[in-house]
Amino acid sequence: MTADLIGRLREVVGPAGVLSDPADLAGYLSDWRNAYTGTAAAVVRPGSTEEVAGVVARCSEAGVVVVPQGGNTGLCGGAVPDSSGRQVVLSLTRMRRIRDLDAANQTVTVEAGAVLRSVQEAAAAAGLLFPLSLGAEGSCTIGGNLATNAGGTGVLRYGTMRDLTLGLEVVLPDGRIWNGLRGLRKDNTGYDLKQVFIGAEGTLGVITAAVLKLFPAVRSRATAWAALPDPQAAVDLIGVLRELAGDRLTGLELMSRRSVEFVLRHSAGARDPFGDPHPWYALVELSDTLPVAGLDAVIESALGEAFERGVVLDAVVASSSAQAAALWGLREGISVAQNHEGPSLKHDVSVPISRIPAFVERTDRALEAAVPGIRIVTYGHIGDGNLHYNLSKPVGGDDDEFRARAGALARVIYDSTCAFDGSISAEHGLGQSKREIVADYKDSHELDLMRGLKQLFDPRGLMNPGKVLPGL
Amino acid sequence: MTADLIGRLREVVGPAGVLSDPADLAGYLSDWRNAYTGTAAAVVRPGSTEEVAGVVARCSEAGVVVVPQGGNTGLCGGAVPDSSGRQVVLSLTRMRRIRDLDAANQTVTVEAGAVLRSVQEAAAAAGLLFPLSLGAEGSCTIGGNLATNAGGTGVLRYGTMRDLTLGLEVVLPDGRIWNGLRGLRKDNTGYDLKQVFIGAEGTLGVITAAVLKLFPAVRSRATAWAALPDPQAAVDLIGVLRELAGDRLTGLELMSRRSVEFVLRHSAGARDPFGDPHPWYALVELSDTLPVAGLDAVIESALGEAFERGVVLDAVVASSSAQAAALWGLREGISVAQNHEGPSLKHDVSVPISRIPAFVERTDRALEAAVPGIRIVTYGHIGDGNLHYNLSKPVGGDDDEFRARAGALARVIYDSTCAFDGSISAEHGLGQSKREIVADYKDSHELDLMRGLKQLFDPRGLMNPGKVLPGL
Repeated sequence: MTADLIGRLREVVGPAGVLSDPADLAGYLSDWRNAYTGTAAAVVRPGSTEEVAGVVARCSEAGVVVVPQGGNTGLCGGAVPDSSGRQVVLSLTRMRRIRDLDAANQTVTVEAGAVLRSVQEAAAAAGLLFPLSLGAEGSCTIGGNLATNAGGTGVLRYGTMRDLTLGLEVVLPDGRIWNGLRGLRKDNTGYDLKQVFIGAEGTLGVITAAVLKLFPAVRSRATAWAALPDPQAAVDLIGVLRELAGDRLTGLELMSRRSVEFVLRHSAGARDPFGDPHPWYALVELSDTLPVAGLDAVIESALGEAFERGVVLDAVVASSSAQAAALWGLREGISVAQNHEGPSLKHDVSVPISRIPAFVERTDRALEAAVPGIRIVTYGHIGDGNLHYNLSKPVGGDDDEFRARAGALARVIYDSTCAFDGSISAEHGLGQSKREIVADYKDSHELDLMRGLKQLFDPRGLMNPGKVLPGL
Repeated sequence: MTADLIGRLREVVGPAGVLSDPADLAGYLSDWRNAYTGTAAAVVRPGSTEEVAGVVARCSEAGVVVVPQGGNTGLCGGAVPDSSGRQVVLSLTRMRRIRDLDAANQTVTVEAGAVLRSVQEAAAAAGLLFPLSLGAEGSCTIGGNLATNAGGTGVLRYGTMRDLTLGLEVVLPDGRIWNGLRGLRKDNTGYDLKQVFIGAEGTLGVITAAVLKLFPAVRSRATAWAALPDPQAAVDLIGVLRELAGDRLTGLELMSRRSVEFVLRHSAGARDPFGDPHPWYALVELSDTLPVAGLDAVIESALGEAFERGVVLDAVVASSSAQAAALWGLREGISVAQNHEGPSLKHDVSVPISRIPAFVERTDRALEAAVPGIRIVTYGHIGDGNLHYNLSKPVGGDDDEFRARAGALARVIYDSTCAFDGSISAEHGLGQSKREIVADYKDSHELDLMRGLKQLFDPRGLMNPGKVLPGL
C-alpha cells in the first residue's frame, strides 16, 4: 500500500521529489530544537502548486495523512509527524519563488517555501519593507509564518502575519486548489476564507502561496535603553511613547533585571548601559521613512517626559548604529544566555497590557511559592502584551528535578494568564505541545466550533492530525 | 404559531421590547435609502446579550428566521427582511453601552448597537482615536460595521473594521453565547473564530459586542488638493507620498473632473481651488500625533517632488482648518451632487492599485460604447484601490431608460473589475443586492466553502437567509 502510494507520488513530483530512504528523511522528522521527533513513510518535495495538489489528492485517495512542513523552526511540534511511520511529510521548501513584486500596489506574491529573509530582501531591493521579523527569519518559511500567524518584534507597528496578508492560495485536503491570491486592500464579497487557514497550523489545508503587504522602507531610526522601577512603569511608558512618538514607535521590549544579568554574565562583550542595576529595562525603537526625521529629538523629549513623570529612572539614547546593535544584543541574547543557567522552561503568553503589572506580581508570587528560589526570566514584546515567561532552576538546584516540574509550573503560569483574560500561546501556536492543555482554558462552544471547522474542511482527518485540536 | 412565538419573545425582552403593530414596524422594514423594503412578524429589541440569546433560541425552536439589524444604513439590503411577513427583525439598537475603555491597553469594549460616532467620541474623551470613519457614522452601529467589515476614509492608514477588532461576543444561531471578548494583540490558540463572523453580514450569528483597538489621538494635520493629468499620476502620487510622508499619510482620495464639476454646479459655496480645470484631482491628508509635527513642510516637499516628476500639475495646501474642510467638502459632496443630474447608478469596486489606470481606461471605453454620452463619475479611496464607479445618464437622456440599463451597466463594470483581479464589492458587502451576481465572479471552490461554513454555523438556515450566499 505504502509502496504503491510512493510510486504514485513519484509520478506526481518526479523521482527526486520523493525521499523514502531513512538516511534522507532525518532532517524532516525532528524540529530544529530536537524537542519533537517522529517517523514518516516518505518526505515529498513538490515544486509547484499543481504538484502539491497531486500529492495531497493521492494521499487522500490512499487515506494517508499529510503533514505540511516549512523551515521546521516551530516551537510546538506543529510540523513534525507522529511516530507511526505511516504519515507523509509534505515539505514546501522547493516552492520558494517570489512570483511577483508589485511596487505600485505595495504587494509581493510569494510561494509558501520562500524563506522569510528572502522576502525581506526582495522588498528591500525594491526600496520597500516587509516588516515581519523574528529570530528564525534566516530559515523559517512564509508558509510556516502563515500557518502559525507569526509575530515577532514588528507587531507593535505592523501587526501579525495575518494583518500582513491580502491573499492566499491553498490546496484543500481533497486536493482541490483554492485560488484566493487577491492583492486587494478592500474586498467584501462573502466570507473571508483566507482567515480560516491563517493560524490553522496546516490542519485545514496546505498554503502554497500568498499575497503580502509591503510598506515604505525605514530610513531613520532612534534606539534607547531605559531603566524602570517596575512593570507598571513599562505600561505607563507605552502611553507616553504612543502620545509623543505616535506611529514612529516601532519597537518596545521589556526585560527584567535577571534577564539582562544572564546576558551580562554569559554573552561576550555585553555591557550594562548603566553603572547601577535597575529592576526592569525597556528597549525603545522609533523609526521613520524620512531620512531626516528628527527622531533623536522625539525620543529624547518622550523619555524626558517619562522621567518627569517618574516612569523612567534613567535612559540612554544610542548615538550610533553600533550602539543600537549593542542594546538590541542585550535583548536578543537572553534566550541563549539562559541556557547557561541550566534547563530553561519557556512560556509564551499574552495579557491585556493594562493588566501586566498585576499579572506579573501574581504569577511571580505563585511560582516562588511552588519552587522557592526559582529564577524567573521575564521579557518580551510589552507593546503587544506578550511576555516570554521563562524559568530557570534555583541556584544549585538539580536539572532533572527542575525539568520534572515543567508541567506543574506551566500550569501555574497558564492559570494566572487565564485569570487575567490572557492567552496561553501568544505567538507560538499550539502544535502538539499545547493542544491538550488548551482545552482547559477555552470555552466549550469555541472548542465545538473549532472541531466543526476541522470536520468541514478535513472530514477524514488526514491533514496534520494530532495538532491544534484537543482530543482529535 | 406566530402569536405564540411573540408571547414567548415578550417573556424574554419584556412587552416594550417586542413591536408587532404595523405602525411601529415601519422604520425597521426599509433601509435608509428606501431601496429595499420587507415585512416582518415582529421587531424585537433586546437590551442585553442574554436577551439576544433568548430571542434567538426561541426563534430557533419555532423555526423562525432572524434578521439582525443595526443602524439600517447598509447599501445592499443586508439588514432588511423579506416580504413573507414571517421573519423576525432583531434590532440591536438598545444595546449601545460602552462597556469598558481601557486606555492603557488602547482598547474599548462596546455593544453592537453603539453608534459609530459614540465610539469615536468615547475614544476622543480619553485622548485616543477610534479611526473608523464613514458617511453614515452618525447613525450606523458597530454591529453593522463588523457585519459588513466597514471601510471608509481611514483604511489607508488604519485598516478596515476587521483590522480594528481584537475580540467578539456572538450569539450563535442556536442561541448559545460565544464569549470571544479578548483584548489581546497576540493570541494563537487555535482557529481565529472571530474572523468568520466579521464580514458575514449576520448570516452566521449575531454579533453582540466587540473589543476594538484604539490609537493615539491625531493632533496635527495638513490637507492639500492636487491636479493630476491622469489616473497613472494618482498611482505615482501614492508612491511619492508613501516614500516622503510615510505613516503620516492618512487620506488619499481621487476624483475625476466630472465628479468635482457636479459639486461645483450643485453645492452651495463650492469653489474650484484652481482657475483652470484639470482632468483629475487628488485630496491628500497627512496627520500626526504630535502637536508640532512640521506637516506643512512634509506635504509641501512631497508635492514639490511630485511636481518635479510630472505627477502633479498644480497643488494647494490648506492654510486653515476652514480651507481643509472646504477641500473635503468637494470630495464629500459628490454623491449628493450627482443626484441632481438624474438617477445615479452606484458601484463600489476595488482593483490592485497598480492596475487602476488600465482598469479605468478599459471600463470607461466599455461604458461609453454601451451608452454613448454616458457621464461617468469616478472617485474613491485610491490608496486602497477602491473606486466608486458611479454613472449618470447622458445629458438630456431619459431617467427610466437609463435606470433600465442598470443591470447591464453593472455587468460592464464588474466584468472589467474581474478582468483586473478586482472585487465587485470593496466595502459595501453583498447583502441581497449582489448575492446572486457574485456567483459569476467567484471560483466554485470558494462558493462551496462558503456554503459549507453557512451549513456548519446555521444548519437550519434561520440566520438572515437570502443574504450573501447565492442560491441559498
